[in-house]
Amino acid sequence: MSLMNNLSTSMISSSSSAFLAPTSFNARTRSVSVPLKSLNIVKCVSTPQEQQTAYKTKVSRNANIAKLQAGYLFPEVARRRAAHLLKYPNAQVISLGIGDTTEPIPDVITSAMAKKSHALSTLEGYSGYGAEQGEKAVRAALASTFYGNLGIEEDDIFVSDGAKCDISRLQVVFGSNVTMAVQDPSYPAYVDSSVIMGQTGQFQKDVEKYANIEYMRCTPENGFFPDLSTVARTDIIFFCSPNNPTGAAATREQLTQLVQFAKDNGSIIVYDSAYALYMSDENPRSIFEIPGAKEVAIETASFSKYAGFTGVRLGWTVVPKQLLFSDGFPVAKDFNRIVCTCFNGASNISQAGGLACLSPEGLQAMQEVIGFYKENTKIIVETFNSLGFKVYGGQNAPYVWVHFPGRNSWDVFSEILEKTHIVTTPGSGFGPGGEGFIRVSAFGHRENVLEACRRFKQLYN
Amino acid sequence: MSLMNNLSTSMISSSSSAFLAPTSFNARTRSVSVPLKSLNIVKCVSTPQEQQTAYKTKVSRNANIAKLQAGYLFPEVARRRAAHLLKYPNAQVISLGIGDTTEPIPDVITSAMAKKSHALSTLEGYSGYGAEQGEKAVRAALASTFYGNLGIEEDDIFVSDGAKCDISRLQVVFGSNVTMAVQDPSYPAYVDSSVIMGQTGQFQKDVEKYANIEYMRCTPENGFFPDLSTVARTDIIFFCSPNNPTGAAATREQLTQLVQFAKDNGSIIVYDSAYALYMSDENPRSIFEIPGAKEVAIETASFSKYAGFTGVRLGWTVVPKQLLFSDGFPVAKDFNRIVCTCFNGASNISQAGGLACLSPEGLQAMQEVIGFYKENTKIIVETFNSLGFKVYGGQNAPYVWVHFPGRNSWDVFSEILEKTHIVTTPGSGFGPGGEGFIRVSAFGHRENVLEACRRFKQLYN
Repeated sequence: MSLMNNLSTSMISSSSSAFLAPTSFNARTRSVSVPLKSLNIVKCVSTPQEQQTAYKTKVSRNANIAKLQAGYLFPEVARRRAAHLLKYPNAQVISLGIGDTTEPIPDVITSAMAKKSHALSTLEGYSGYGAEQGEKAVRAALASTFYGNLGIEEDDIFVSDGAKCDISRLQVVFGSNVTMAVQDPSYPAYVDSSVIMGQTGQFQKDVEKYANIEYMRCTPENGFFPDLSTVARTDIIFFCSPNNPTGAAATREQLTQLVQFAKDNGSIIVYDSAYALYMSDENPRSIFEIPGAKEVAIETASFSKYAGFTGVRLGWTVVPKQLLFSDGFPVAKDFNRIVCTCFNGASNISQAGGLACLSPEGLQAMQEVIGFYKENTKIIVETFNSLGFKVYGGQNAPYVWVHFPGRNSWDVFSEILEKTHIVTTPGSGFGPGGEGFIRVSAFGHRENVLEACRRFKQLYN
Repeated sequence: MSLMNNLSTSMISSSSSAFLAPTSFNARTRSVSVPLKSLNIVKCVSTPQEQQTAYKTKVSRNANIAKLQAGYLFPEVARRRAAHLLKYPNAQVISLGIGDTTEPIPDVITSAMAKKSHALSTLEGYSGYGAEQGEKAVRAALASTFYGNLGIEEDDIFVSDGAKCDISRLQVVFGSNVTMAVQDPSYPAYVDSSVIMGQTGQFQKDVEKYANIEYMRCTPENGFFPDLSTVARTDIIFFCSPNNPTGAAATREQLTQLVQFAKDNGSIIVYDSAYALYMSDENPRSIFEIPGAKEVAIETASFSKYAGFTGVRLGWTVVPKQLLFSDGFPVAKDFNRIVCTCFNGASNISQAGGLACLSPEGLQAMQEVIGFYKENTKIIVETFNSLGFKVYGGQNAPYVWVHFPGRNSWDVFSEILEKTHIVTTPGSGFGPGGEGFIRVSAFGHRENVLEACRRFKQLYN
C-alpha cells in the first residue's frame, strides 16, 4: 500500500471518529477503504503529519462546537450512502433516508417562479433587497391561509429560507444562558443547535445525552407524548408535531397540556409543524389552535414537504407579539433584529413560488403532492405490518417508525443498506430514545417505494 | 388626541430610543407623528400599558442582544425613508441609501433561472435537498473564475445565500470567546453580529464604541488603511476591501502588511470582497493573491452587486483547508458543520443563476451591469467635487464617501432628506470613524442619479 493510500485510509478512520453514536456502530459492516478525495463529502480533514508542521493560528476552537459528537445526521447518512455506492458501483440504491422530496413541483408553482425570474430582467419587474421578514403579500397569504381565525397577524409571520435555518436563528435569539427540552427522539437540529450555542454540557457517553438538556422520552408506551409530570422545567421546549421521526401527532388534549405546562413554568415552546398538512386525524394543525398559546409559543413551518421546496428553500416562523421575555420585552422584536442582522430575506423567486403555493390552484396542487406521499406511506406501513414488525407513524406524517426491539439502529441501518441497497435513517440518530428503531421515509417515486418494499419482504420474510 | 393616537405617538418615541447614534440625532428634524401600523416597518413594540398586565414567560432576554444600541442600520434608514414619505406623500424620493441594486438582471442569467424553475416541474429536472455547501458545478465555476491560479480548490468554497448570512455563520463558528477588530468605519454586520455572539462588552456612549472591540480607524489621513502598529492583537480581523462605506481599496502592499500582521498575531482575517469587481485600480481582487493568506484568511463574497442578486440571494465564502485553529483543527471543518446544521444550502434556482453568471456570456453581462453603476459613481463624484466637497471612494467601489467636516452625519442625512428628498446613509452608522461623512450609493437608475445630482447642486451650491 502506497503512502497515499495509507494517508487516505487514516483520513477515513479519523473522520469515523466523528460518527453518530460511535460506540454503538458495528465496525465490521463498514470495511470500506477508499481514497477520501473520491468520496467528495467529508472534507478538510488534515492528516496528523500535516498538522504537526503546518502553521496554526492562535485562535482557539469554539469549545461548544467541539462538544458535538457527530457529523450532522443527514450528511452522515449521505456519506454512508456514497461509500456504499463506491463499494457497489452497480447497485440500484433506493433512498428512503434523509426525507428528500422526489416528485416534481406542480407547474402552477414553477410557472410563477419562472415568471418572476423573467420579470427580474425588466425595469418594472426587477426587485432588489426585500424586507428581511419577507414580502408583505407572502406574509398576508400565510396569515390568512394557515392562521385565519387564530389571531395571528401578518406581522407576526417571518418568511425564511426554511425551518432549519429559523431554528438556528431562534437559538441565536435565546443565546447561551437558557435551558432546553426536546422530545427524545426528535429532529437533530434542535439539540445540535443548542450545543453549538453553548446551552448544554458535554456529551455523556454512558447515556448518549448531552448534559443540561431535558430529554422528554417519547415511546410506544406513552403514545409518543412525554409524561410531563416527570419533565423538569426548562426555558425552551422544542416540540415537533407531527413528529419527525416517530410520525406521532399530538392531540388537542395533549397540546393543551403542553401549553399549560409551558405556562406554569414560564417556558417558551418552539413548535415545529413542518408536517402539519400530512395529518389524517383531526389534531390541531397549529399550536395556535390552543387557547393561550400565543403567550408561550413560536411556530416554525416550511414549504419543503408540501410543495417539494427542499431545494427551492422557503419556510416561515410565527412569533406572536404576545410572547414576552421575563422583563416584558417582546421576543418578536429580538427575532426581528436577528433576522435583519443575520439574514437578508428568502430569495424573491422562492417567495413568488410561495405565493403561488397559497393560491387556490397552488393549495390544491400541494394537496395532491401530499396525497401521493401519503399513499407511499400506506404501502410502507402495510409492508412492515405484513412482515410482523411493530410500526408507528405513517398516519399523520410521511415517516414510518419501525421497531427492531433489542437491536442497534446503526446495525439495522447497515444490514438494510448492505443487503437491500436501501438507505433508511437509524433511529438513534434522533436521540437515545430512537435506539432500536429505523425511520423509513415515504418520499420516493412510486416504483422505488414498491421495489423497496419487495426488497424489505425478501430480507425480512 | 385620541387614546389610539397617544399610544401611537408613544410607540414612535419608544422606538426612537433605539436609533443609531441616538445622542447625536437632531430631534427637531423628525417631528413626524404617524400611527405606527401604517409605517409597517418597526413592529412588535409593546406599549408600557400592555406590558404591565400581560403574561410574561420566565425566560430571560439574551443579554448580548440587549447590548445592541440601535436597529440594524439599513432597516433604520428604510424606516426613516418611510416616515419621510408619510410626511411628504407626493415627494419624489430618490434612494441612494441602502445600496440596493436597481438595474434589471441580464437576460442570460434570468433565463437560466426560469429554465431551472420549469425543470423543477419535470421528473428529470427536479432536485430536492442539495449539498449544504452548494452544487459542485457552482463551486467549481467559482474556483476557476475567481481563484484559478491561487490554489483555492472547489471544496474550499461554500456557496451561500449571501455574504451577510455567512458573516453570521462565521461568528457562530468563532463563538463568544474570541476578540475582534474592525475597520472604523465599516459595514455594520461585523460589529452587530459580534455583539450578538457575546464577543463584546457594553456600548460606551462617550466614545460610541462597544467595549472589547478593536476599532481600526480608517481616515483620509491614513489613506483609509489602519496604522497596524497601533492596533492591538485580536483573534478575528474583519476587513472589507473595497471598503463599504469609504470605497477605499487596499493595495497589494497594504494587504501584504495585513497578512503579515495576522500571521504575527495568529489572527484570522475575515476578508469581505463583495465589491472586488468594481475596482479600477490594479489592487488584488482576492486576499488569496497575497502569499501565505490561505493560512490566516477567510474570504466572503457575493453576486448581489455584480448581477443585481440582492433579492435573488447568492454568495460564497472561501475557507481554505490550510486555515487551522490553535489546536490544529481545520476551521473549514467547523464551518462545514455549522453550514450543515444551521443552513440548508442556497436556493437551487439562485444557484442556477449563479452558474449562468459564471458563463462567458454571464461574466460579460455582469461587467456591463458593473460598468453602468461605475458611470453613476463618476457622475456623483464629479458633482460633489464641483461643489467643493472633499470626496473619497468611487474609483474602486460603488460608494462615494463625502466629507462634511465638523457636522453630525445624521444631521446631514436629515438635511439632505428633508430638503432634497434624497436618501443617503449617515457615515456614523458605520462606526464613530464615519462621523462627519455621508455615504452616497451609486446604485440607481441613471435619470434618478442625474436628478439627485441636480438637487445636490441646488442644495449645496
